[in-house]
Parts: sequence; structure tokens; C-alpha cells
Amino acid sequence: MRLLTYCIPGDDTPRPGALLAGDRVADLSALASAAGVRLPPDLLGLVAAGAPALAAVRELLAGATRDGAPGDGAPGDGALIRPLAEVVLRAPLRPGKIVGVGLNYVEHVAESHRTLDTERELPDRPVLFSKPATAVTGPGQPILHNAELTKQLDWECELAVVIGTPAFRVTEADALRHVFGYSIVNDISARDQRRSGQWFFSKGQDSYAPFGPVVVTADEIPDPQRLDLSLRVNGELRQDSNTRHMLFGIARLIADISSGVTLEPGDVIATGSPSGVGAGMVPPQFLRPGDLVEATIEGIGTLANPVVDAR
Amino acid sequence: MRLLTYCIPGDDTPRPGALLAGDRVADLSALASAAGVRLPPDLLGLVAAGAPALAAVRELLAGATRDGAPGDGAPGDGALIRPLAEVVLRAPLRPGKIVGVGLNYVEHVAESHRTLDTERELPDRPVLFSKPATAVTGPGQPILHNAELTKQLDWECELAVVIGTPAFRVTEADALRHVFGYSIVNDISARDQRRSGQWFFSKGQDSYAPFGPVVVTADEIPDPQRLDLSLRVNGELRQDSNTRHMLFGIARLIADISSGVTLEPGDVIATGSPSGVGAGMVPPQFLRPGDLVEATIEGIGTLANPVVDAR
Repeated sequence: MRLLTYCIPGDDTPRPGALLAGDRVADLSALASAAGVRLPPDLLGLVAAGAPALAAVRELLAGATRDGAPGDGAPGDGALIRPLAEVVLRAPLRPGKIVGVGLNYVEHVAESHRTLDTERELPDRPVLFSKPATAVTGPGQPILHNAELTKQLDWECELAVVIGTPAFRVTEADALRHVFGYSIVNDISARDQRRSGQWFFSKGQDSYAPFGPVVVTADEIPDPQRLDLSLRVNGELRQDSNTRHMLFGIARLIADISSGVTLEPGDVIATGSPSGVGAGMVPPQFLRPGDLVEATIEGIGTLANPVVDAR
Repeated sequence: MRLLTYCIPGDDTPRPGALLAGDRVADLSALASAAGVRLPPDLLGLVAAGAPALAAVRELLAGATRDGAPGDGAPGDGALIRPLAEVVLRAPLRPGKIVGVGLNYVEHVAESHRTLDTERELPDRPVLFSKPATAVTGPGQPILHNAELTKQLDWECELAVVIGTPAFRVTEADALRHVFGYSIVNDISARDQRRSGQWFFSKGQDSYAPFGPVVVTADEIPDPQRLDLSLRVNGELRQDSNTRHMLFGIARLIADISSGVTLEPGDVIATGSPSGVGAGMVPPQFLRPGDLVEATIEGIGTLANPVVDAR
């Protein structure tokens, strides 16, 4: 399933939904209500409610898309299923925490050493940092460019792992069982706002974590370590790699983080950026107001965000 | 007011309370219910509800502690006011985020440069990092010592600022109006778990943010930049300073952080540690299972936590 959160024009209430074939969005709360089924009111609640809730959603969607079922083109289905073009997507959920992974693609380690302040050697343990929930923004929402704070606003297309069940001290072998699904995070950085080397302020500002457009449940991604990922700025290809080039794979990341930090349902791991960031270009190129950034991951979709002047 | 969260033995439900004279704890929900007043069910909700909710609490407490009022020694007051010794304190609230400030006391910058990997120069901007909410633990709760992950578990007594109202791009002059109150955070670090210089995993593990014992509302702290703070390990004084020695004061920190990151009600700023950390001792000394760490700040109280073997 391809789960999401959306609003309808004129109503700012976020609604949990599912993306159906033919670019249609099913309203999960409305479907549940029509079927007399109880569901958590938002996607974070749905993730936390675990397998039974997910099974209930699957059944609701199967019913709604069956030929002739209400909602599948039948009259009066407007409240249950809407065209994607008629809704406004939000970030799928607000994570309790976003754990970022730095320097997790070999070629990015090289470009980062060449142009930023990081070491030449490959890290022997995952390099972890975090972005706060206030940094999250949704598909289509602006990335805030404040020229008074940064002249080096940069992009990073990353596979986002959404945690499904609490994980503390899990083994690599068990790790993937704790994954609810996969999405995209664009790990935006103001390179000139690192503070004595710490990345929190350079990567944690409001709008620096575009997230979405959907969370694809883990069952629909047979091998998360074999996904093409790429990023374009104003249509020009800047990043182009595959998740098989991660230095530390997803299972290892979950095992490593959870060796000390409990991962909770809805927490997000941003698994690191391949090479091709703006700081690594010759000459360096950074985001400016008016730019459009599109991060694409195979099997998930494209997360597109405009950069706006927010002085 | 001195606000807190507690449980009663045999019941794990966290309750919002207030510490009264004579080491007694008032149950805010029970008082509100007895008075027919609606209050948010937890301290985070109370912080978010703002001034009217705080005024209601103040009035409830004034009523409850008036001579002869129910709850002030009258029969049947057990559910309204209990001796502190009969309750179990929890962390006052679960913050949306904890923003930590590194290298914010001059002498700590020197000891950190001498013994860790930081620069000799005073930072010209606040050095920001973060700890996740999962790192929070309450007064009296164990600090987890996992010898498989660290041989360098260290302490840092810090004044905690609890945000009351949303702050984005606030000036230094307006900053303190956004403060709900003050508390203590012990910024525990596994010094040997810095990852390529990033502090998230060294400072963000479960139990690495003891928090409490109370949040003192801002009106009761006339000058937060003139508070003695100290820390003892097994009764021996290790840190002893005053918040007037902060490099960047609280107002400046709020203005700086909020220049890019929205601070939300209940968010916590851990304002940095004075000198006297274990890594700076000759020879270095770190926490071991069996130790007791007590962080004390004038006007707030003492946050005491045992260190336990958690392999």
C-alpha cells in the first residue's frame, strides 16, 4: 500500500489516505466510517497500531476498489475517493525523531572530504545525527531559503525508513521486521551553519526535511537495498545512484542505532545521501529561491519542493 | 509554582502535580476534578494551554492550601495531596525536542579542548545539537551503563529551559517571554561514541537525559543568569559554577535557535555544562555502575540518578 496524508482545498484537517491506481486517493477515515470499522485518525496512529490496523486498511481498500463497490466511480463516492490532483498532500506523518546518517555512500564520503570538513577515511561506524520534527515539511511545500542565515543551501536525496514496531537492541537479522515502510527524505543542509562541526542547526531548520510523498509499506519493496535514487534541480540531474551503494545497510543501521537509542513507531531513519550534492560540484552550486528540487526513489515516487525566499 | 509529574505506587499512570511547602505533592487533575475545573491531563498539555491554564492551576493550589480547605490535612484528602515520600517522580514531561548547547561555559571550552576533540577558541555562535525524547528519564531513574558501548560515560549539569509559547525568529528582547519555566538536565555523554565528531549517538542514548525533578515556573526565577549549579558523584563535588558564566545567555540562545528552528511548547533547551566533567579530570574519571550522580541548581532542586549496569 501507498499511504499518505492529505487535505482537501478549503479544509486544513489532515486526513489519512491511500494512493490507488489511476492517481486516486482513498480517504481511510471515511472508508472506515462507512464500513463501521474503527481506525486511528492519522497515519502515525495507524503505524503505531500495528499489523491488525494495517490488515483492516488493506481490507477496506480491497472492498472500495472492487468493481461496482461504492467509491469506485459509483455516484456519491466523492467523500471516499478523490482524484490525486484535487487534494493537497502533507508529510505522511510527524515522526517522534528523525535519525540522519552521514557519509553513508562511498563516493559521497570522498566529495564531502574534498569540499566540506569531514575525514577522508570511510567511517567504521554509522555517523548519526538528528533532525527535529519541526524540520519536516510535505510534498510541494516550500524549502525556506533565508539568505541572512545561509549562502550554501544544499540537497541530499535519501531513502527514508519508517519504523513500525519499537526497536531496542535488535539484531541485524531481526531488524527489518521493525520496518513499517519506506519513503523519501530530502536532507536539506545549510552548509555554512555547521557549528563547531555539529550538524543540528545546519540540517535541523524548519522545512529542511521534506518528507513523502507516500509511505510504501515494506511488503511492496522486496529489496530496499536495490532501489535507484536520483535528484534533479530545475530538471537537471544532480544525484543518480542506487541504495546498494550504502556503506551501512538498513538492517545494520537499525541494529546500530537501537543498540543505544530506542526506535519508536513512526520514527524515521534518513539513510544517507549518495554523491552529487551542491557542495561537491566544481564550482559549488547551491539552492536559490525559485529553484525546484525533485528527489526520486524507485518504487516510491518523486518528492518535489520549490525553494522560496523566506527572509 | 513547582510543577512535576508523578505516579503512585502500584499505578503507572503519570499524573500532573505541584510540589507544595512541607514536601507535599498536590494532584492537579484530582484538584481540578474536585473543583469542577477542566485542565489538560498532563504537564505538557498544561504548558501548551498557556497562561489561562496556569492561572487556573494557581487558583486551585491557593484553594487547596488555604487553612481548613479540603486537602490541607482535612480527612479524606489522600487523593488530593500526598507526601512527596509516598510518590514516584517521573520526568516532568516528554519534550518534542531537546536542543543541547555545547561549549557554553568558558572554562568548559578549555577543558574540552584539552581532553576531547573540540577547538581551543571560544565559539562565535552557539554550538547546537539535540537529544531525542527517548533519551529522557526521570528523577531517581537509572542512567544505563552499557560497558559494551562505552568506557567513558560522563556527566554534565545543565540549566534546562522549558519553552512555553511557540518561538520562531524572536528577538533577544522578546525571548524570555517564551519561557515557561526552568528545570535541570544532566547531559550524559558516552564520550567514546562520538561518530566522526557528531554527538547524537554519544549524547542521545536512552536514559542520557535525566530531567527534573520539577519545572519551576519562570515567575519564581527572577534572574536565570544568576543561579549556582553543581554536580556531585557519590557525594564528591565535581562541578560548581553559576549560570552567569554562560557564554551565550538564555535570551541569546532562544533568539539564535529560533532564527531557523521553531521552538514549541514543552521543548527543552539544555543550556550547556560548566567545567568539571569527568573527561577533564587528571586522570579522567567516568561513571560506573553503582555511582550516584546528583545535579543541583539553585531555586530548582536536585536531580539524583543512580548508574546501573545495563549490558
